[in-house]
Amino acid sequence: MQKLAYLGPEGTFCEAALRILAPDAERMPCANVTAALEAARGGEATAAVVPLENSVEGAITVTLDELAWGQPLLITAEVLLPVEFSLLVRPGTGMPHIKRLFTHPAAITQCRGFLARELPDTVVIAAPSTAAAALEVSMPGSPYDAAIGPAIAGEHYGLVELASRIGDRDDTVTRFVKVAPPGALPEPTGADRTSLVAFLEDDHPGALLEMLSEFAVRGVNLTRIESRPTGDGIGRYFFHFDAEGHVADARVGEALSGLHRLSADVRFLGSYPRADHLAPEPKKGTANAEFAEAAEWLTWLRSGRL
Amino acid sequence: MQKLAYLGPEGTFCEAALRILAPDAERMPCANVTAALEAARGGEATAAVVPLENSVEGAITVTLDELAWGQPLLITAEVLLPVEFSLLVRPGTGMPHIKRLFTHPAAITQCRGFLARELPDTVVIAAPSTAAAALEVSMPGSPYDAAIGPAIAGEHYGLVELASRIGDRDDTVTRFVKVAPPGALPEPTGADRTSLVAFLEDDHPGALLEMLSEFAVRGVNLTRIESRPTGDGIGRYFFHFDAEGHVADARVGEALSGLHRLSADVRFLGSYPRADHLAPEPKKGTANAEFAEAAEWLTWLRSGRL
Amino acid sequence: MQKLAYLGPEGTFCEAALRILAPDAERMPCANVTAALEAARGGEATAAVVPLENSVEGAITVTLDELAWGQPLLITAEVLLPVEFSLLVRPGTGMPHIKRLFTHPAAITQCRGFLARELPDTVVIAAPSTAAAALEVSMPGSPYDAAIGPAIAGEHYGLVELASRIGDRDDTVTRFVKVAPPGALPEPTGADRTSLVAFLEDDHPGALLEMLSEFAVRGVNLTRIESRPTGDGIGRYFFHFDAEGHVADARVGEALSGLHRLSADVRFLGSYPRADHLAPEPKKGTANAEFAEAAEWLTWLRSGRL
Amino acid sequence: MQKLAYLGPEGTFCEAALRILAPDAERMPCANVTAALEAARGGEATAAVVPLENSVEGAITVTLDELAWGQPLLITAEVLLPVEFSLLVRPGTGMPHIKRLFTHPAAITQCRGFLARELPDTVVIAAPSTAAAALEVSMPGSPYDAAIGPAIAGEHYGLVELASRIGDRDDTVTRFVKVAPPGALPEPTGADRTSLVAFLEDDHPGALLEMLSEFAVRGVNLTRIESRPTGDGIGRYFFHFDAEGHVADARVGEALSGLHRLSADVRFLGSYPRADHLAPEPKKGTANAEFAEAAEWLTWLRSGRL
Repeated sequence: MQKLAYLGPEGTFCEAALRILAPDAERMPCANVTAALEAARGGEATAAVVPLENSVEGAITVTLDELAWGQPLLITAEVLLPVEFSLLVRPGTGMPHIKRLFTHPAAITQCRGFLARELPDTVVIAAPSTAAAALEVSMPGSPYDAAIGPAIAGEHYGLVELASRIGDRDDTVTRFVKVAPPGALPEPTGADRTSLVAFLEDDHPGALLEMLSEFAVRGVNLTRIESRPTGDGIGRYFFHFDAEGHVADARVGEALSGLHRLSADVRFLGSYPRADHLAPEPKKGTANAEFAEAAEWLTWLRSGRL
Repeated sequence: MQKLAYLGPEGTFCEAALRILAPDAERMPCANVTAALEAARGGEATAAVVPLENSVEGAITVTLDELAWGQPLLITAEVLLPVEFSLLVRPGTGMPHIKRLFTHPAAITQCRGFLARELPDTVVIAAPSTAAAALEVSMPGSPYDAAIGPAIAGEHYGLVELASRIGDRDDTVTRFVKVAPPGALPEPTGADRTSLVAFLEDDHPGALLEMLSEFAVRGVNLTRIESRPTGDGIGRYFFHFDAEGHVADARVGEALSGLHRLSADVRFLGSYPRADHLAPEPKKGTANAEFAEAAEWLTWLRSGRL
Repeated sequence: MQKLAYLGPEGTFCEAALRILAPDAERMPCANVTAALEAARGGEATAAVVPLENSVEGAITVTLDELAWGQPLLITAEVLLPVEFSLLVRPGTGMPHIKRLFTHPAAITQCRGFLARELPDTVVIAAPSTAAAALEVSMPGSPYDAAIGPAIAGEHYGLVELASRIGDRDDTVTRFVKVAPPGALPEPTGADRTSLVAFLEDDHPGALLEMLSEFAVRGVNLTRIESRPTGDGIGRYFFHFDAEGHVADARVGEALSGLHRLSADVRFLGSYPRADHLAPEPKKGTANAEFAEAAEWLTWLRSGRL
Repeated sequence: MQKLAYLGPEGTFCEAALRILAPDAERMPCANVTAALEAARGGEATAAVVPLENSVEGAITVTLDELAWGQPLLITAEVLLPVEFSLLVRPGTGMPHIKRLFTHPAAITQCRGFLARELPDTVVIAAPSTAAAALEVSMPGSPYDAAIGPAIAGEHYGLVELASRIGDRDDTVTRFVKVAPPGALPEPTGADRTSLVAFLEDDHPGALLEMLSEFAVRGVNLTRIESRPTGDGIGRYFFHFDAEGHVADARVGEALSGLHRLSADVRFLGSYPRADHLAPEPKKGTANAEFAEAAEWLTWLRSGRL
């Protein structure tokens, strides 16, 4: 049976994502994204489930950076999870008692309207995760009176749901990925995504334009681009890309090869089925059959037959 | 005398940045970036000083999002501040006593090596800012035994510097910007930067490539690109750009106009002197004099004179 | 009354084109394209009518080169003339008598099928123009037995039309232009064309790609591109472009200015109504109103208002 | 022994080119380029030598069109021949006697200065080739008094060289190519050229830009671009390209495959040693070794190894 590390403690959105990806897996909650990925790297877990981006907050930068550096890992699956926040308190706490509220900064941002409207005088303190906040609040003698987090966290820690769906938007989604040590890739399904990281050879003007051209010329659409600092000073970046298609697709393979030749380093982060099952028609001239036909044509040319 | 709101409390790196930008200004510490910018928007402060990006942590996304939405503000100056972390404790606390450490997540990340080596068993809790952490630790009865933060925070709150320069890297830099309500722009100096935000008309493949081409064709180099979610779902982004040059420069003005015609919306975030004083030679054909000469030539053509 | 020089002698396709462009003009036949253009340059004629390209033969390179070098001239009108060839002989000549046929090389090429089928043993000699051929054949004692040329040439020189529409294709078209000394441009009609010549600053790889980008970024479509040797050796070229739109259009003006800044030299050859009256919708963001709005927006930015 | 068809009659520049390419070959003069190429196609000759372009006159369009249509042929060699014109007359003819001069239109253009200066009143008549002109002039009773052509033509036909090097420029060069039926390609030498013809799928704006991008992204430099009409009406073109490198080179092969997928049709015209022996260093990331390394890397990725 597989054992999946995830961003714990119990009761996180990440646990909810894991239950969708692998309902029967053994679960191993970890203190943070780094610890979850290290568990997958070190073999204590079969794989890890971690958040990658949120439709309001953006990239989970710690995940991006952990995947870009250190021992390589492969994304093998993704899931999109709606984010619904609840206001969680110890039994007996009412709205007027809430002086200090503990939750993750993302929840603070996404519940701004509720907080300003319903709890304008409450001091809000940042927690490492919403589940950690719920755990902390659940402890007798906690300095905090309430947490914001997923309903599942309230259940786990015996808290009362004083208000539900308190996010400013009700369509917020977080994308979680399952990450495993290198091994056989998921088979192409026709609706796949490929993730990678590219480091520039030298950071000249126009370098990003050149990298995007490698994809565009092969008709490979990008669905996400993130710049991240290399750590070598302001103005020095590397890039995360998500592209439509599977590395087994000719157009994706050629684009990655082109990027590899152009770049100081390209780290492949995996090809896996898209959670939204979208399978856009390849641009004319870029389907696998068209690549195969062109390769055959080239072989003929090179042999002098026309 | 100007009054500058900043990311408080007293003792933050942000205060150190403010002192460099405006040594004589009155200082108004705010609870978070949002509050500091609101103070500038509402007139309680002349302007605000906030962090924009860090050479290790990357963009300060709350700043990016606050500048992109809501009432417009203009960046009028920037400063690059080396980030040096100290381990701060109440007098009498020694290394073995540190069970719970409170600091900002960025400091946790950047002091990973030190923490793993020197405080492997310490529980680390996330604080809203390093100065807030120092303040909290300074309070009698604090549940935390130590903070990580700038030396200046220790001075402010009467803490002892148990270790200094404990960051994994000693070249980490944070870029802070001064942000003010719309008004006359800083004069071009020849070594300027222009910041802006662009929203796509429709999120088609190749849209980013088109936007980059608007800059490239006019010889305008980009020094920073960040994608941020629009909030309308995974896969929907807008972009922050920093470009070399001043909007008063012909090449920058034409590129911005082109981007404006192409995009659903472009928000100008200001043109201001670069902190690094770099003044790259414009690419051939893109200096102001060359634009002026071409405009004159075009006027002649249109009048039928050759 | 205007006096138009044209590629003579009387009876050329060029005369037919001239009659369409200016039915009432006085006509001045010239020995070749160079002479016709010189007449316009020198003032002996008001303007000149010369062929620019043919849908089968391609560019009339002498016209391209004459317009690119020497004293500048402006194209002010164009016309598309179907090319229909007739076999012209002196009265009394029958098919079997045709031993030597005289005509312009373009006519030889375009009547290949007819010649091979009907006159397989006839010696075909190149003439400077189809009308010159007809004139020569019309002279008693001519060494030639037949000419191929326009029906109008037969009428002019008293020849008999032994066969008509003998071209291999019946949809061949020649594009003629009216060329005048610099002066007020034709007013924009919404269905205009702009012609120009661009010389590279230095002939580096990618230079043509850069030039095309100047048009593409402003949404200016090109309808014709010709490379011509500069005369400085194999591999050194300059370029003729025809673009959709009028130089008075903002997108065309900006593209030309960009090309001017990029190039060693750009020679404007005129903006004039298209003979086919096609008026493609400008690409989104490139209409005159959109340029005007963007310019106003830029003025606001530069003044610090947002 | 090989037998080479060429643009005759004896005494042409083309014969001079042939003698350089294959001093010992049997020579087969043909009436025109078409006949020479048909001889190679039909097997009457081993191969053909024809002019492709001239550094002053530009492309030899009949050659371009013959290579683009009909039964495929391959260029296997090229030579650059300086073009030096002589004024050729029958013995006894002096300058004052020259009333009618016969020569190829290219010679007329390239000797403009001499003709205007020395023979201002002479009638100049176009001939199918300079050698044909010399032959014609050599015949007793010729209506022409002089020819312009290569010195070799004078020798062949017993004419006197009244003036030599009479071209306006003394650095004019014609590029001739040897063309053979499909067969094994010349081995790569490191200083090669590849010729091809591309037909657009549909003639949309930006199609040429897309084609050029296929080359640019693989670092393949183009040394010649010619547009030619498809014959389907003004504004419909196909393109001739000369590229640096050999189709056996990975970067050239991949660019051709890309062009093939993008285009309605691509006709390969051969890879052969450059006459100028220039061997530009491939752009970083585009050497054969770099392609091979990237292909190996891709194989690893696809197998899930990192």
